[in-house]
This record gives sequence, C-alpha cells and structure tokens, in this order.
Amino acid sequence: MSKRPIIIDTDPGIDDALAIAVALFSEELEVKLITTVAGNVSLEKVTNNALRLLAFFEKDIPVAAGASAPLIEELIDASNVHGVSGMEGFDFPEPKKSLLLKENAVNAMYRTIMESEEKVTLVPIAPLTNIALLFAMYPEVKERIQEIVMMGGSASRGNKGVMSEFNVATDPEAAKMVFASGVPLVMAGLDVGWKALVLPEDTAKLLELGEVGKMAHCLFKKYRGGSFNTGLKMYDSCAIAYLLCPQMFEVVDTYIDVELCGSMTKGCTLVDLKGYLKKAPNAKVCMDINQELFRKWFLEFIGQCK
Amino acid sequence: MSKRPIIIDTDPGIDDALAIAVALFSEELEVKLITTVAGNVSLEKVTNNALRLLAFFEKDIPVAAGASAPLIEELIDASNVHGVSGMEGFDFPEPKKSLLLKENAVNAMYRTIMESEEKVTLVPIAPLTNIALLFAMYPEVKERIQEIVMMGGSASRGNKGVMSEFNVATDPEAAKMVFASGVPLVMAGLDVGWKALVLPEDTAKLLELGEVGKMAHCLFKKYRGGSFNTGLKMYDSCAIAYLLCPQMFEVVDTYIDVELCGSMTKGCTLVDLKGYLKKAPNAKVCMDINQELFRKWFLEFIGQCK
Amino acid sequence: MSKRPIIIDTDPGIDDALAIAVALFSEELEVKLITTVAGNVSLEKVTNNALRLLAFFEKDIPVAAGASAPLIEELIDASNVHGVSGMEGFDFPEPKKSLLLKENAVNAMYRTIMESEEKVTLVPIAPLTNIALLFAMYPEVKERIQEIVMMGGSASRGNKGVMSEFNVATDPEAAKMVFASGVPLVMAGLDVGWKALVLPEDTAKLLELGEVGKMAHCLFKKYRGGSFNTGLKMYDSCAIAYLLCPQMFEVVDTYIDVELCGSMTKGCTLVDLKGYLKKAPNAKVCMDINQELFRKWFLEFIGQCK
Amino acid sequence: MSKRPIIIDTDPGIDDALAIAVALFSEELEVKLITTVAGNVSLEKVTNNALRLLAFFEKDIPVAAGASAPLIEELIDASNVHGVSGMEGFDFPEPKKSLLLKENAVNAMYRTIMESEEKVTLVPIAPLTNIALLFAMYPEVKERIQEIVMMGGSASRGNKGVMSEFNVATDPEAAKMVFASGVPLVMAGLDVGWKALVLPEDTAKLLELGEVGKMAHCLFKKYRGGSFNTGLKMYDSCAIAYLLCPQMFEVVDTYIDVELCGSMTKGCTLVDLKGYLKKAPNAKVCMDINQELFRKWFLEFIGQCK
Repeated sequence: MSKRPIIIDTDPGIDDALAIAVALFSEELEVKLITTVAGNVSLEKVTNNALRLLAFFEKDIPVAAGASAPLIEELIDASNVHGVSGMEGFDFPEPKKSLLLKENAVNAMYRTIMESEEKVTLVPIAPLTNIALLFAMYPEVKERIQEIVMMGGSASRGNKGVMSEFNVATDPEAAKMVFASGVPLVMAGLDVGWKALVLPEDTAKLLELGEVGKMAHCLFKKYRGGSFNTGLKMYDSCAIAYLLCPQMFEVVDTYIDVELCGSMTKGCTLVDLKGYLKKAPNAKVCMDINQELFRKWFLEFIGQCK
Repeated sequence: MSKRPIIIDTDPGIDDALAIAVALFSEELEVKLITTVAGNVSLEKVTNNALRLLAFFEKDIPVAAGASAPLIEELIDASNVHGVSGMEGFDFPEPKKSLLLKENAVNAMYRTIMESEEKVTLVPIAPLTNIALLFAMYPEVKERIQEIVMMGGSASRGNKGVMSEFNVATDPEAAKMVFASGVPLVMAGLDVGWKALVLPEDTAKLLELGEVGKMAHCLFKKYRGGSFNTGLKMYDSCAIAYLLCPQMFEVVDTYIDVELCGSMTKGCTLVDLKGYLKKAPNAKVCMDINQELFRKWFLEFIGQCK
Repeated sequence: MSKRPIIIDTDPGIDDALAIAVALFSEELEVKLITTVAGNVSLEKVTNNALRLLAFFEKDIPVAAGASAPLIEELIDASNVHGVSGMEGFDFPEPKKSLLLKENAVNAMYRTIMESEEKVTLVPIAPLTNIALLFAMYPEVKERIQEIVMMGGSASRGNKGVMSEFNVATDPEAAKMVFASGVPLVMAGLDVGWKALVLPEDTAKLLELGEVGKMAHCLFKKYRGGSFNTGLKMYDSCAIAYLLCPQMFEVVDTYIDVELCGSMTKGCTLVDLKGYLKKAPNAKVCMDINQELFRKWFLEFIGQCK
Repeated sequence: MSKRPIIIDTDPGIDDALAIAVALFSEELEVKLITTVAGNVSLEKVTNNALRLLAFFEKDIPVAAGASAPLIEELIDASNVHGVSGMEGFDFPEPKKSLLLKENAVNAMYRTIMESEEKVTLVPIAPLTNIALLFAMYPEVKERIQEIVMMGGSASRGNKGVMSEFNVATDPEAAKMVFASGVPLVMAGLDVGWKALVLPEDTAKLLELGEVGKMAHCLFKKYRGGSFNTGLKMYDSCAIAYLLCPQMFEVVDTYIDVELCGSMTKGCTLVDLKGYLKKAPNAKVCMDINQELFRKWFLEFIGQCK
C-alpha cells in the first residue's frame, strides 16, 4: 500500500514535536514537506526547532518557512507554555539548515501539492496563516487537496481566551478563510485535545521507549500544557491520531465558523451542532476521543520512533 | 425563623411554572411579588399565565407586568419549547386578575424592596430586562437587595444560539447591565440546567403527587425542553433549588460578562474561570449539580405543593 | 396662540446654558420641565448648573435629576470643553434648590407628559439615557409626545470619536433605543452644530445685550467648543432654533441608526440618505443651516432675555 | 529624467480606463505592470477589459490576473455603475491576450519590484486584495516600494455603505493589512473623488480630443458615477493626478485605520485627523482638490493620449 502524502504545517512547540515524531516514523504517512508559521514562538524559532527535530530524528524532509505574523492580529506567543525556545528541556542537535528551502512555505506547499500524483492531505497544527494564504494565492490548489486535518478550535471553551482556542484565535481571519474554503476539513480541537492525555504512569514508561521517548520525557518536564502529575495534553498528536487511527474519535458532520467581530469572543469557533446558523456542514468535528485507546496508541507509536 | 423575602421575575413558561410552584409552597421563602417580562412568549401571555398559576395554586401574591420587549433586540420567543400559550398541556383556571397591580413591574419591585424591612432577594428566571431597568431607574435600590439568584447564561454552549443561552441572549444589553451592577449575583445557567433532569421514572411518580404533580405531568407532555423519554430539563427550578438547597451545587467565584458585539456570539456569557479578562469576580457561577440530590429534592418539593 | 409645551433634557454645559436661556424667554415655548443627565459633567454638577441657571434667569421651572451614568458605557465627560464645573467663567447665583423635584427625571417626564392636555415636545440636548429609559419604562407615553427635537449625532465625522458625536456616543445604546422608538424625531447634529457659529464680532455685541448677553460673553471666554477668534459652536441652540425658526434649516427625511458594535465606530450615527440600509425613514435630519440667519436669530433672542 | 516606475492594480471599470489612459501616455510614468483584481466586475471581466484597453491604446504592458474574490467578504460588484462588462459604451478591440502573464498578480508584482533597479510605486485603484497578499506573502518587498498611491476610502461618508467607500469596503481586511503595512501611503478617497469632476461642457470637448477622447465620451454616456449633466466623478484618475500633479491636492499626515467589526460600519476608513485613536500617522490623506486645476489637467492629458 502506498503511503498517504501529507504536509505538516507547524509551530514547534513541545506537543508539535511529539506529533511530528509520530508522523515521521509512521509507515502509513509520507511527510512530503514541513512548513512553519509564527505561533507558539516566533517564526525564526519554530523554523529552527523544526530543523533541530529533523536533525535529531535523522530524517531528510524539506522545510519551508512561512508567515512571520498573523494576517491582521498581532502575534501573542505561547512561550509561557513551551518555554522561551519553544522546545525547552531537551538538548537537541544543531538545526539541519540544508533542509530549509529558499521558497516560502506557501509556494513550497503549492509546488509540492501540484507535483504530487496523489492528492495531498494538509495537517496544520498551528495558526492557519499559511493555509489561508495558500488558498487566496492559488485557489486552483484546492482540488488537489485530499482533506485538511487540523488541530485547533473548540466546540466549547478556550485556552487563549475564555471562548477561543490558541491556533484559531492567533489568526482568526486565516481560520475563517480556511473553514470557508470548501476543502474537506476535520477539526480536532480542545474537545479532544483536553482528553488526549499522557498520564504520570506513562511519562515514566517514556524513559524506556528509546531516544524519542527520552526526548519526550525531558520536554514534558518543561511543558505547561497540563501538569506532569495529572496528565499532559497531547493537542497536536490528535491530528496525527485521526490520520492513523480515526476509530478512536467520535466525529460529527457540522458547520463551523469563526467569530471575527466579538469584543471578547474574537477567535471563538462556532461549532453549530444544532443548526442555529442554518448553514450546510463544511467540516467534521471530533467531539470525543477514547482516552484509553489514545494513550496506548501514543505510547506504542512513540516506542516505534527511531 | 423568618422566611426569606424574594421577588420572582418570570416569563411562564413550563419550567417557570414548576419553579414558581416550589417557591410558593416552600416554608423558607416569602414570595413578595411576581413580575413578568416578555420572553418565552409575549408579555400579555406570560402575565396571564402567572395569574392562572396563582389561581390554580390558590395563592394571593401580587403580580406586576413589566417590559413587553427587550431593550434593543427584537423578541424571538420560545413558543417552540413551551407551546403557543407558553403553558400548553394543562387546563388552568381563569387568571385571577385582581392580583394584577396597576404599577409596572419595575416600580412594583422598587416599592416592594424599599418597603421591606429585610433585604430582598431577586430571582429572575427570564430575560433580565426588568432588572436592568430597575437598576438604571433606581440605583439606590441596589443596596437593599440581598442578592440576585438567576437562571440564565452558560459557561460553555448555548440553547438560543451556538454559544448563547435563551434568557441572556434574548436581552443581552440588559444582562450586561445586571452583571455589571455590583449587586451580589449567583448564576445558575445551562451548565446545571442541562443536568437538572426529571427522568422518565420520575414523571410517572408525578401523577401520584397531588394536583401540582398532575399539572406537572400534563405540562411535561408538551414541554420540548428535553425529552419525556430521556429526561426533562428543569432550568428555572435550579434558581429555587439554589435558594433552598445550595449544597447540591458546585459554585465558583468568577467574573462574568456578556458579549454584545459578536456577529455570531452576541449574548454569549463569558464565564472567566481562568482570568483571561483580568477582572475581579462579580458573581458566583454554578458549574455542577448533584443530579441525584436534585431529582429527590424536586420530587419531594412538588409533593409538598398544595 | 398657546405656547408649545416642551421638556428640555440637558447636561449644562455652556452651550446648553445659552439654549436654555433662549427657550425660557421665548414667547412661543412653554418649558414645563427641565431634566438633567450625566454628560458634559457629572449628574450632580449638571443638576446644580440647571438650578443656578434658573436662579439667574429668575424662572421657576421644575427640575428633575435623571441618570447618573449611561446604560452600559462608562461616562467620559467633556469637562475639557466646558470647564470643571461645566459652566466655567461666570459667577452664577446659588442653585435654587426648591425647584428640584423628588421624582427622578424619567418619572417626572412621564407625569408631566401624561398630565399635559397638549402633546409635549421633548428637547434632548444631552446623552439620551433619560429618554431611552422613559420609553422602556412607559411605552404608553410615546403617543403623547409631539416629537423629539434633539441635538446630537452626525451625518459625517464626529467630535467624541473619529466618526461619533458626543451626545450619541456617550450613551449609544440609549440613542439606538430612541431612534428605534417610533416617535417622530428631528436630529440637529454636528452637520449644523459646526456651522451654528457666534463670530468674534458677535461676541463683542453680547456685552451690550443685557445680563444674559454678559453671562454668555463670560462663559464664551472659557468655552472650548470652537475658538473665540474664529467662531463658537452653538450646538445645543440648534435644537431650540429648529423649534422657533425651522426655515433656517435644510431638512431631509431619512433613516438613522446607531452603530453599537464597531471596534472604532461605536456611537457613529448612520444617516442613510442614499438608502443603503433599506429601511423606511424614522427621522428628519438637519443637513444644513443658514449661518447668517442663525447668527441674527441668536443675537436677537439673547437680546430679548431678561 | 528617468520615468517613475509604477504598477497599476486595477478593476476596469470606466474611471479606471481613463486613469490607465493618462498613466500610459504620461511621459513621467513608466507603467511596468498592470495587475487585475475582482471589484467593479468579476476577475475574468476586468482582466479582459485591461487587455482590451491595451489593444486599443496599442501599448505592450504585461498584465497579471490576481485575486478573484476578497479575502473574507463576498464580492458584490459595481456593475450598476460600470455596466455588465465593466466598460459599457465603447466598441473596444479584442483583448490582446499575449500580454497576459502566466504568473498571478502577486507573484508578478513581487518579481517586477525585486527586479527593478529603482523603488517602485504601487497604484491600487481597486480593492486591495492583491496588495495585502503581496505583503503577507513577501514582506521583504516592502522596502523596495517607494510608496502606495491609492484610490479608496473616505474621511466622511461612503459610496458602498453609509460610511464606507467601494474599494476599501469590498475587501476591508485587505485594506486594513495595507494601511498597517508600514509602507508610505497616500490615500485619495471620496473626499477628492467626489470633487474630481468632468463637467458637461468638458464632455463635449472630449469628442475633439482624438480617439481616447472619443472613447471617454462614449463610456461616459453609460457611466453611473455621477451624471452626464451635473458632472462625472473621475475617482481613479485622482491617484494618477497625485503622481503627476500633487500640487492640486490638499494633503494631511494622519493615522488611517479600517473598521472590521461594525455591524453597519464595516469597511469605514477612520481618518483620525484629531488624534482620537492616539496612533502615529501612517498615511497622507488627500482632503481637498483644486477642481479647476483637475479639470484642466484631465482634459489636457486625455488630449495627449494616442
């Protein structure tokens, strides 16, 4: 069976690092390109982090740097969660700079998608600035995309504002453009991200799971996405988990939109399960996750890495 | 022990009817006044319904009619939930018109509060138009109010819009004025209203609980706030339950605000549990309810009525 | 001919003082009540100023104090324009406190209107908080009102924000309620207020125009609504001028609404001369004023005072 | 003296056609590229119109097609003003398709700017979608731009909504991105566009001004941007006039922003002449135009064409 071609759009980020690990070592996925975007920390740092990860994983995947800021909003990063570098806690090798393309992320995505024989799946686990620009610049690309499987948004409360999730609320205009693009989309948001936990007993096991497990263990000591004692939230791995093991999710067809105009709710995703907005579905939303299955899956896959 | 003086501001409404029943027959509460406001159905209908309820319960409580429309929004009623009359399903006696005051609700509230020796508790289980007008017209009344115990709002999703609850979203400007009033406030919203269920096995028991039980049973057959088979949501009774049995609730001090400016989120209550808005707490919010305790309490109190 | 009964709702304010003077000494108007509202300065100060003016003018008109704050917005006063007291620059007599009613402004307006044989004209030259509360509390009053002739709003740019005028933008929700009330309304806003000038050569003449002229001359030295050298803007007198001399205005039937939801345009009046909003007219707007006629009229009327 | 290199971003459009004529035949300007964007009519039509114009003018300027829709808003065109084709009224030659680049407008602009020895001036006389995408995709291009001289926006009222101008309000998010870009910007909006009139006596003269004059005369008979009898508004020519004859304008340094969040004011430009928004100037705004000078200039330049 041929591998499924994907492009990961990311802002590593500790939970990004783990998601990327699982994707890179999966036998079912072919990571054709990694693109970066300002989010958890600055574009320079996240690009550097992506190149460090590839050096550590010893994988030669091309990397392209994208937007250094959201379309309209000012960037407020999440270094409080991921540390100053964005991947605090582990001594990564030097970034493998030879992997960095001269093209920017949008042009690299465009070329990669158009050159691919099979339709490509986009996996944004970061603010959606690059994807929005891709669709605005090159609308013809849409029909060459299999689907978008994203981490972001929420059907209920938020983690950047009271009602808004970080990836969507960092660039709400971009998110709106992506939800409105007409491209098939799966949203794995906080509804599953908050439940995709690595528990204290798991973190001990990580130490036995080879180099990647050790790396994870180190990063997790610095990670502020949950607590080392009560469970760490593997937000971004949800998008990869959906690709590899969709049966662990409860998924609903629905209409999703983004509030752009709320004085306190800008960036809130409206997941319209009851049809209040009277719009046809434009997405699948992951409303629940089998927590046991996720833990097992996560540890198993981290164990397979490297 | 002296009874606790309260004013119920209401738009009956099937679940209002039950909440009023419990309050009127409680030995701990003194309902000094019932005020009405357009909401579930028109002002004329809800006022009529209040007077019918009092005729049925044989209680002589003064009633005053209030606002016939929200401050700014147009009224979109909930006759889809409560039936055309607002209390569809039971053959109530004629309204006891002699109980209707000539004063409007706001002036009647003002007079009642100022004449009361003890501070009065306001119990709005309807859109907050009357309460907002009371505070704007007579700010001096605020210090004569013990607290506001309201049904409305939500810490997560909505039942009028994707993210907005009916009572708050029907008159969001009024709700904002009430949350900002400085008067101590307890919000029992959808977070508990959705769990305050009367279950199928309970509805059968209602038939044995005297006339009020029978009335409840009849109304429940028409009620669309949940399903007769899977559980009926006793939203408004939560406010009365909080007065009589607060220990069944999990309550958190927090800041609550109302979105007035969202293109799709107007009327969303922002229950800022994590302090994103950097404001001092202005309310207590009921985040959870002991469902078993509520069911037992509800049936016991309905059994005591009449 | 019987005099036309009016109620002036005001926040004196230097230009309010002049408008009140003209109204009180006019043979065509009967000022039945003066109501006050927080705006140019605090409620306490504007009420005091109204009572000082009546002492100075030796007129026994009842005064009622109204709202001490806008419905939702925080009060940001205009003491930068009118001085700390709101009427800086002249040594007024002590306030005639006996004229102050115990009723609040809304109740006094209601009673005055309902007791009047003829329909009453409301003349708000201040934020519209009181008028909005009057309509929300007592909708039955609307049919006893001849019309509203207000100073406020703008068909173009603003004087409180880039696109918002002081009286409307101080309480935009109240203004929206008044424009939507269905009561006939004439808006004299900045489009005429900016042209209703007293010129340098006029200010000299004021000294010869009796005590009121002298008072005006003194106030004008402190007034920051325009410049003593290039012309002083008699905003509020436009409303009185419209009552007494409508032929000096160019008036257009139109639909007017208030922006409540703009991040930078809240309080902007939308004067929809071209029908973009597809609504039926709800107001007359004064789009132009004959400046020569206004000056002559103003000086003549100030000359008649006292 | 070397010619000033410019790129015209346009959506022809009748007044665009005239502006382009003047620019193409000017001895001071070098039009390096014409880019098109959906606006007055669809992208397909405006691109076709640009190619027809170049065939008619016999000028070999490369053309690149850009965005077929605004970033977020739906396109509502102005075919009511410009006719179904966008250039109704004259029998243009077939479009010179060989001039159409395969690159999209954004990439063509980027390449043209980076290849130019001198800094390039952007002249957008259309919605700002392409320019916003250029800056988001290639921020490094900003320092190679001399300035942006745009037609769009308004310091007062609008022509698409009550307070919003067509080019800005068609893609308000794009306009916000351009005003916030940090690139020097001159805004020639409705404040001058409404005064940049060709009068009835001028339209007769056009017939004597060669082929371009005749074309103008024909187009003007169909143009609904003003009246053939009272004056036709040459909006887009204002941007070219500013480049060639800036002394006919009154220009003010100011801060300009775009309202994205108003329920009725979205797309309103806030031209903050008085500093209400407390921001440093980011633009020059043309507040007035010498009407006599403009007419003379316009007829003279149209006379020079072809």
